[in-house]
Amino acid sequence: MTSVEFLFDFGSPNAYLAHRVIPAIEARTGARFRYVPILLGGIFKATHNRSPMEAFGDIPAKIAFMEVETGRFLARHAITDFKMNPHFPVNTLGLMRGAIAAEREGCFSHYVDVIFHNMWSEPRKLDDPAVVRAVLEENDFDAQRLLAGAQAPEIKAALIANTDAAVARGAFGSPTFFVGAEMFFGKDQLRDVQEAILGGERTFTPT
Amino acid sequence: MTSVEFLFDFGSPNAYLAHRVIPAIEARTGARFRYVPILLGGIFKATHNRSPMEAFGDIPAKIAFMEVETGRFLARHAITDFKMNPHFPVNTLGLMRGAIAAEREGCFSHYVDVIFHNMWSEPRKLDDPAVVRAVLEENDFDAQRLLAGAQAPEIKAALIANTDAAVARGAFGSPTFFVGAEMFFGKDQLRDVQEAILGGERTFTPT
Repeated sequence: MTSVEFLFDFGSPNAYLAHRVIPAIEARTGARFRYVPILLGGIFKATHNRSPMEAFGDIPAKIAFMEVETGRFLARHAITDFKMNPHFPVNTLGLMRGAIAAEREGCFSHYVDVIFHNMWSEPRKLDDPAVVRAVLEENDFDAQRLLAGAQAPEIKAALIANTDAAVARGAFGSPTFFVGAEMFFGKDQLRDVQEAILGGERTFTPT
Repeated sequence: MTSVEFLFDFGSPNAYLAHRVIPAIEARTGARFRYVPILLGGIFKATHNRSPMEAFGDIPAKIAFMEVETGRFLARHAITDFKMNPHFPVNTLGLMRGAIAAEREGCFSHYVDVIFHNMWSEPRKLDDPAVVRAVLEENDFDAQRLLAGAQAPEIKAALIANTDAAVARGAFGSPTFFVGAEMFFGKDQLRDVQEAILGGERTFTPT
């Protein structure tokens, strides 16, 4: 079976929206997405890319259309609880290290759900360690253990390695997907991801 | 029936690729796209936007991925004769005025086909008036009449009016589509355009 990867950073609203749609794609295709924590700021730095908000900040028509696109995506997928985080952009270094620590602790999937939810559905200021600790404790994690684990040199190195590997494979932003060696970018290419997984004839017929 | 519009400038390779796919969408939906000549440079100036090549020129990974996306689009739609124009970017002011003149002369559809083809399939230097004249003559247009007509003040004004109206409706780049009042951007959103025309439930199922 072809590997399917989702390179994510909690700081990206479009990564969150992809995260919300992935379960349905998994159900339809039988594929299982492997979530790969990366540091989006590191990818931007390595590729000279910037967030859409920065890149298009002086093009109001483009920003307005991105909001239209987001609205269409929410409607298409019946997502009713998305909220922009008022603290955006949130520094996610600690959260992404925490994701790697959670992988090793066996609580990765729950961690990803909880952090994404508290970033983009009930948004909190998740670059404040006290807030992160509170969120983890409210959701039955061993916060002390995870937060300490996230500071381990091998965890820091693993996040850097994931990020470097993403850049080496051509990634430049978020969300990024790989189906085998084929890269896809942006929440709107999840349709193409699904087609690539199914591997069938790529047609243009809707519904 | 909802109006469907395609705002185009011959200088945009993605507009050409959309042009190649529109007939199939018309056949599938029964809709007829109204082609609206605009001056992309005017839209860029009004919105502070830039061409992807300019905007992403210092982000090689993004440029490389745009080439992948183009390759996928060509494959999906079995387009085998697309060529980058070696003279890109080509100043299209005269060509777009010519499009408005051709509309009034009743040879619009043929003009659009011929100019697009000689820009992106058998690419020529179409900001050279002698080359444009040759292309028109080779394709049985009354070149003299069209080229003179394109210089008429009301033709120049009509192109400006189309461009201003596009900006007023939110357009910022090429290709831009409208289905009624709903705007779509980019060749990859032709799928969404088709869905919007059909007006049915927007699903996520491929094939």
